[in-house]
Amino acid sequence: MSDDLFAPERAEEGPGRQPWYVLIVDDEAEVHRITRLALQDFQFDGRGLNFISAYTGTEARLLLNNRHQEIAVALLDVVMESDDAGLTLVDFIRNDLDNQHMRLVLRTGQPGQAPEHRVIVNYDINDYKAKTELTAQKLSTLMHTSLRGYRDIMTIEANRRGLTQVIQASADIFQRQSLIPLLDGVIEQLIALVKMDKGLLLERRRHFAARTEGLDLQVLVASDGYNHLSGMSTDDILAPAERGLIREAIARNHHIFTDEGAVLLCCNNFERSLVLFLEGGKPIDQMDRHLLDLFIHNVAIAFDNVRLNSEVEETQREIVYLLGETVETRSHETGNHVKRVAEFCYLLATLSGMSEEEASILRYAAPLHDLGKIGIPDHILHKPGRHNHEEREIMQTHAFLGHSLLSQSQRPILHAAAIIAHEHHEKWDGSGYPVGKQGEDIHIFGRIVALADVFDALCSERCYKPAWSTADALAFIQEQSGKHFDPALVQVFMANIDDFLRIRAAYGD
Amino acid sequence: MSDDLFAPERAEEGPGRQPWYVLIVDDEAEVHRITRLALQDFQFDGRGLNFISAYTGTEARLLLNNRHQEIAVALLDVVMESDDAGLTLVDFIRNDLDNQHMRLVLRTGQPGQAPEHRVIVNYDINDYKAKTELTAQKLSTLMHTSLRGYRDIMTIEANRRGLTQVIQASADIFQRQSLIPLLDGVIEQLIALVKMDKGLLLERRRHFAARTEGLDLQVLVASDGYNHLSGMSTDDILAPAERGLIREAIARNHHIFTDEGAVLLCCNNFERSLVLFLEGGKPIDQMDRHLLDLFIHNVAIAFDNVRLNSEVEETQREIVYLLGETVETRSHETGNHVKRVAEFCYLLATLSGMSEEEASILRYAAPLHDLGKIGIPDHILHKPGRHNHEEREIMQTHAFLGHSLLSQSQRPILHAAAIIAHEHHEKWDGSGYPVGKQGEDIHIFGRIVALADVFDALCSERCYKPAWSTADALAFIQEQSGKHFDPALVQVFMANIDDFLRIRAAYGD
Repeated sequence: MSDDLFAPERAEEGPGRQPWYVLIVDDEAEVHRITRLALQDFQFDGRGLNFISAYTGTEARLLLNNRHQEIAVALLDVVMESDDAGLTLVDFIRNDLDNQHMRLVLRTGQPGQAPEHRVIVNYDINDYKAKTELTAQKLSTLMHTSLRGYRDIMTIEANRRGLTQVIQASADIFQRQSLIPLLDGVIEQLIALVKMDKGLLLERRRHFAARTEGLDLQVLVASDGYNHLSGMSTDDILAPAERGLIREAIARNHHIFTDEGAVLLCCNNFERSLVLFLEGGKPIDQMDRHLLDLFIHNVAIAFDNVRLNSEVEETQREIVYLLGETVETRSHETGNHVKRVAEFCYLLATLSGMSEEEASILRYAAPLHDLGKIGIPDHILHKPGRHNHEEREIMQTHAFLGHSLLSQSQRPILHAAAIIAHEHHEKWDGSGYPVGKQGEDIHIFGRIVALADVFDALCSERCYKPAWSTADALAFIQEQSGKHFDPALVQVFMANIDDFLRIRAAYGD
Repeated sequence: MSDDLFAPERAEEGPGRQPWYVLIVDDEAEVHRITRLALQDFQFDGRGLNFISAYTGTEARLLLNNRHQEIAVALLDVVMESDDAGLTLVDFIRNDLDNQHMRLVLRTGQPGQAPEHRVIVNYDINDYKAKTELTAQKLSTLMHTSLRGYRDIMTIEANRRGLTQVIQASADIFQRQSLIPLLDGVIEQLIALVKMDKGLLLERRRHFAARTEGLDLQVLVASDGYNHLSGMSTDDILAPAERGLIREAIARNHHIFTDEGAVLLCCNNFERSLVLFLEGGKPIDQMDRHLLDLFIHNVAIAFDNVRLNSEVEETQREIVYLLGETVETRSHETGNHVKRVAEFCYLLATLSGMSEEEASILRYAAPLHDLGKIGIPDHILHKPGRHNHEEREIMQTHAFLGHSLLSQSQRPILHAAAIIAHEHHEKWDGSGYPVGKQGEDIHIFGRIVALADVFDALCSERCYKPAWSTADALAFIQEQSGKHFDPALVQVFMANIDDFLRIRAAYGD
């Protein structure tokens, strides 16, 4: 690991890189002049020096308050406005500014004022020099050793910060429970990770997550400004060379880093691969590659978890549909009735301002509204004509029966289904059954399912009636506002009728 | 963060701590002697020095091969068995041993052989001294500055390694999908995290995870050697002061660190809290506390995920039971029949060597075996006596009906249920329905459900028969081995009959 850690900085030598900042604090102007002169051609790791001068401890403090993070080495005089101005400055930097990284060198002209032994033991400095011993050569050596120490610390420190960021990024993504929010998080965290400490401005570049769909590779989520790429095939948006890189990553089962960015392989199995395409515009260095690798390892785990989770949830949804459909099938109604009712309910709920969580529970539970029909005898359930009084009474027991079957469980979805089974034949004006509840005494789930169920039944053919036209059905719903139905729900329904008709069309019989 | 990072080492000054290892490589015995003499009372951060001597570059290499990780500072002569033996040693340490942390100081007696400028630029050393300039005071200063640099690097490096370990530990726990394996992983990773780099031997100490159950706190998982604590109340195993710490952690919603260990609060809500109890025998320092905090944050997320996951799975199981029970209820069979069949099937499957995953799918799917009865008319389904030929033919269509309802879905559980609905009335000798499959042509799921379903039906009262005695039922099963039932399954069933009877007793009618 540490070879990866220390290699890249050295490899990047060359002109054009930021200089090292060196702070000189000394009350003699001549010391500033000589220092700058002696080190004017100095280079370390291909980077020159940039001097900042202060002439008193107070001046240095003001300056450090804003800029201490960028200063690599400080050469500090001891005696300035006071006998220990330089020593106080050391305390200020280490304790008040809490800067442990800056290399501090004391240069004293009066060793008597700051005896070497006392100073080196009591102050957290990195070297102690008498001004007299600092020849040009010694000054150059001092600068080399100081910068080398600073570089080593900053390299590990950058890695340490990167790792902290990987931990935070991972915590973020592990909280995401479904695929698209997960991938949104991954893209966001990747941008933050790669930009880190390197001054790369990666925002507004093209990053995306794509997944194989058969032979195709489809974009699922793209970075800000590239949202329009979602759903597109990578064939339509990438250059041939870029497509080749992705194929190579999948074939070699390995990330690929290029001078322009990276193709990261998150998950690769026989049926589906997930790749992340990063357009960096600049090579990603060794340390960042290692951090990315750690992060992507976690992304793959989070991806597996989400997939497992959604498999279980989808199974649950299908079982509920099946349960609802099974009952409907016995009533000779069509299987898609329960799916449409579920979708109508979800839409009505979200349009009415219900939370996503509650609306989802309603959507899962709504298919079970007629479960109690399981207990209704064939001759009543299947009677083509109107029920007589006694038959109607038996038919109406299905609300109670459904409730009693479902209320055996305390799980939120089944608890909601029990309420729905019980109350979906109550009416706003109190004329419904089994209890005759009215208005807001009827649970909102019951009121929503009542509207969704009736609307779909009106538009469908039943053994006792043909399908109504949409116009007739809507007129009936409107007419029953405040009688059968919650008027607020009718209003929302009418205002968004196109969306409801679209659902009906999508789940036709 | 960096104040946390650098504070603890300083706070821990005192006697009894490991010395700093200093390597002296020099071909003059006198240099060794003088160095040791000059530094004999030296202390840094409350720790003395321990010198290791080598007299040639070759000797130093042999020694470094094994011990380089423990050496803080090396004082290297340049000219020994060759003119550049010391310089070669620098390369060896930095490149071959890949040790970037050891502080390297060149001490040369013949500066002409190794000109300061050339050496300082080309070799990754931390200081360059002529032997003549090294007075006792300068040697002490050098040792202070070198050890200070070493300590700072090692502090960040320890934190860096700790963070890497938190990432690995988190990746491990996020792969765990249910509570007990998750907590096993958490305990294991905590032990590794806290022991890290500190020489604490935490193994065989008492660590456990406990969860509130009402007013009680129950151990769920304990460290190796303390497995017997699982399931026990903390009231029975902790001293009053320890119980008080846990109560305080929950009340203050905060971890508590003591001189002996820690109480870590993983998750705290009105219904359930999860706490981790660590018995360290030694205080946990500031850096490790920070790492633990990061890790526990992830544990809480993993814990939430597992809880969410198990909530969804439990809901699914209840819905399937409900679906099965609903059908059974219509057949006037008792609700617990499907639960018993599910448990019988799971036990038969695992006893027959089926994988945990497949056995779980079977357990989920088995309750749906009679789903097709939904399509059987009341007068046939509810007939108290024997069915005539025509009625029997209609009754038998339930296998096909169930299959056709269930096979609409490709989800593993519903796919398995479709197979079971179709094949649970097939018989080993080919005399069953609907197809007349025989032997291993019948899916193992079908063969298992056939045995479980018949056994439970025999022992239960039905509208057409009273409940059989256990002895009669077992005699019948045995007699039908190789006729109705797979003989291998009958053998496994008989060999473990007590376990099956226990399930029957647990889910009585």
